[in-house]
Formats: sequence, C-alpha cells, structure tokens
Amino acid sequence: MELKVYVDRLSQPSRAIVIFCKVNKIDFEEVGIELLKGQQLTPEFKEINPMGKVPAIVVDGKFKLFESHAILIFLASAFPGVADHWYPADLYRRAEIHSILDWHHSNLRHSSTGFIQNTLLAPLFGRPLNPQAAAEAEKVLSSSLSKIEALWLKESGQFLLGSNQPSIADLCLVCEIMQLEFADETDRNRILGPHKKIQQWIEDTKSATKPHFDEVHQTLFAAKVKLQMQRK
Amino acid sequence: MELKVYVDRLSQPSRAIVIFCKVNKIDFEEVGIELLKGQQLTPEFKEINPMGKVPAIVVDGKFKLFESHAILIFLASAFPGVADHWYPADLYRRAEIHSILDWHHSNLRHSSTGFIQNTLLAPLFGRPLNPQAAAEAEKVLSSSLSKIEALWLKESGQFLLGSNQPSIADLCLVCEIMQLEFADETDRNRILGPHKKIQQWIEDTKSATKPHFDEVHQTLFAAKVKLQMQRK
Repeated sequence: MELKVYVDRLSQPSRAIVIFCKVNKIDFEEVGIELLKGQQLTPEFKEINPMGKVPAIVVDGKFKLFESHAILIFLASAFPGVADHWYPADLYRRAEIHSILDWHHSNLRHSSTGFIQNTLLAPLFGRPLNPQAAAEAEKVLSSSLSKIEALWLKESGQFLLGSNQPSIADLCLVCEIMQLEFADETDRNRILGPHKKIQQWIEDTKSATKPHFDEVHQTLFAAKVKLQMQRK
Repeated sequence: MELKVYVDRLSQPSRAIVIFCKVNKIDFEEVGIELLKGQQLTPEFKEINPMGKVPAIVVDGKFKLFESHAILIFLASAFPGVADHWYPADLYRRAEIHSILDWHHSNLRHSSTGFIQNTLLAPLFGRPLNPQAAAEAEKVLSSSLSKIEALWLKESGQFLLGSNQPSIADLCLVCEIMQLEFADETDRNRILGPHKKIQQWIEDTKSATKPHFDEVHQTLFAAKVKLQMQRK
C-alpha cells in the first residue's frame, strides 16, 4: 500500500499520526503542509482534504481520508503488523477506545486548542487574543485532565484503561497535552502541576514510542523557542 | 446480551440510539433520564456514566459505555443481524464513516447545539441566552450543512457517501439536524431553506427507518409545542 501523509508537525493530531507510522514501521511519505503559511487552504491541498485541515492521508494515489482518529483506526486496521494493543480487536476494549476518542473532541481537544489559541497563537492567524475565552478553556482543560486521571488512568497499568501498552487513544491524547509546551511555563505548571498521573503518563508514552516521540516533537520545541524570542 | 439504554428522547444522540435499536430489532430496555430535571447528574446515574450525560448503555449488567458514536459502533458490531450498510465491514467504507462521525463533533454537533442553546434552551438550564454566540453558531451550522451537501450527499445515492441505504452516520447527523425543530419557524426556514439536498436526505432517512423515526421524535415535537406555549 502506498501511503502519503499530509501533516504539519506543529499540529498535535499530525504528530500522533507520524509517530504511529514510525513506531509501527509503516512505510509512508510525509508531505509537509505549513499551517502558518496557509498551505492547508490552497486549491491543491483542498483536492486532498476539502476541509482545509491537516492531517490527511492518500492511499494508493486515490483513497483520501481526513480526521486523525479515523486515520489512525484505518492505519491500525489496514496495515499488517500493527500490534493489537494499539487498536484492540476485542469489541469491548475497542468500544472503550472509541468512547475516549469521541470524548476527546469536545473536551480535551476543544479546551486545549482554545487555551493555546487564545493565549498565544491567534495573532499568527490574524485573530486577536481573547483572555475570557482562554480562562473558560482552561477550566474545561483542567476538568478534562482530572477526568482522564480519575476514569482512565487506573492504578494497575501505565496507560489508559489500565493497559500496560499504549493505544491510539494514548497517543492522541498525550500529543494533545504536549501542545501545552507552547504555553508560558507558569501557565503550563499551573495547569499540569496538580496532575501527577498525567505527567507520569506522558513520560510513559514517550518511553513506549521512543525515539520517535521526541524526534517528532522537535518541531514543536523549535517553534516554541522562536515564539518566545518574538515575544521578548 | 442484556442491554439497557439510558436516554432522554429530547437529546439528539439519544434518539439516534433508540431508533437504531428499534430498526435493527435489538432487544433493549429504555431507561428515561430527564435532562430538564437534572437526572443525568445524580450519583446513581454517575455510576452509569461519570460524565453525567446521556446516552449511555449497560450490557449484561456490567459493561458500561458512553458517547453515542462509540455506542452505535458497538451495537452494530456486537449484535447479530445488523445489516452491513449501517457500519460497513469494508475498511475503506468504514474509515469514511468514522471520518464523518469525527467531523460531526466539532462542526455540525457543536454548532447545532450552540445555536439551540443560545436562542432557546439555555434558560431551562439556568443560563442566559447569548445572541452573539447564537450568530456565530449559525454561521458554522450553515457552513456545515453546505459541506455535507457538497461532499457526502453525492447525486448517485440517497444517503451519505452516495449510498442507497443509511449508515450510523446518516442517523446521527439527521437526528442532530432534527434538533432545529426546537427553533422558531423563521430561524429554521432561514437555516434549512437553502439546503434542498439536506431536506431530501432528512425525508429519505425518515422513510428508511419508519415508523420508528417519527415515533421516537414525538417527544421532541411535544416539547416544542410546550416551549412555544410557555414563550407566548
């Protein structure tokens, strides 16, 4: 199967897909779409994903797919050799993974994006910062982190649902939380500080996917340094 | 398999699940959780779904699941006799269904809920109406309807992705749009009027799931009449 993945490593779901492919030794061509240059909105890219967003994939030059959860489920199902723990065949385990991924959209994803956009990134896309929206997003974000700890990071295992190995849900949610690296250190410490289980889970996910997790996040760290210099 | 479904028929994803079970002759016990009475927030219900939301299911008295898309995928996979068109076994078709369902969360769902809450329902939950938020939601809602028409309601079939029979995505998205029945007639006509394909798709989905679609929506129509009387 010939696989092209259209991503910007500054985007959290893009990173999840690149890490997943690398960890699972899926052969793919990475095509960079720079969000800050508006490349996701060009007519050429809208032929790939009419929604004008990354990530997106093209399989065998004709099957196009967008939405990161759908892409990860497809890759885990269509490529041989992906270990079962990533997307379990068992219907009950699989249902719980779907439930976490669905919950992610309107809770962790929505609030993490809202916080980072409204405290830092909005001006790069020509929009004003909105402190009130940022404060509301932070409330939902903190509550989302508490729920992940209380419900899904059970004590018996390192990963979601008490597992000893990561699933696509671990990868998606941890890459989302990594987006907080963009935030000021005081903001990040205030938000992540109270959540020790979350911090351990991030470390465990890094460790389970090394060296790819750190390598793929280099772009984020470099952008963070650049952003800090600009703001000084 | 013993199935309990916890729903309020005023909630769009609750209706999708009840209709799905009835159309597919899945044996289930419906447990009413009245949102307007706050029954989703009781300690008893939070034992079922700690997120305090409907719908949720319990299977064989022990397996608990929330998030409507995850529930529909589980039901379509775990119960024998559900026709393939609801949740296709083919990985490529299935991936496209996942993509639509994922897209739904942050686009159609988010905007439809935002519009109805901020024009009508917020006071019932002790919150003020917010005309600016309603206007922003309407913009995204109209754009979402246009995207559904342009991308997924292909001319060759009656349903999403050019199919001749409905999938779980048709059911979820159409039940979402039916929530606009709560809106004033002028608002509803302004929003749905320009979208002839959407209107036809609603009729086709009703027809493909009759008599259950109309029967399950009776609660919504009754609530709408009651709400109109209260506002006069």
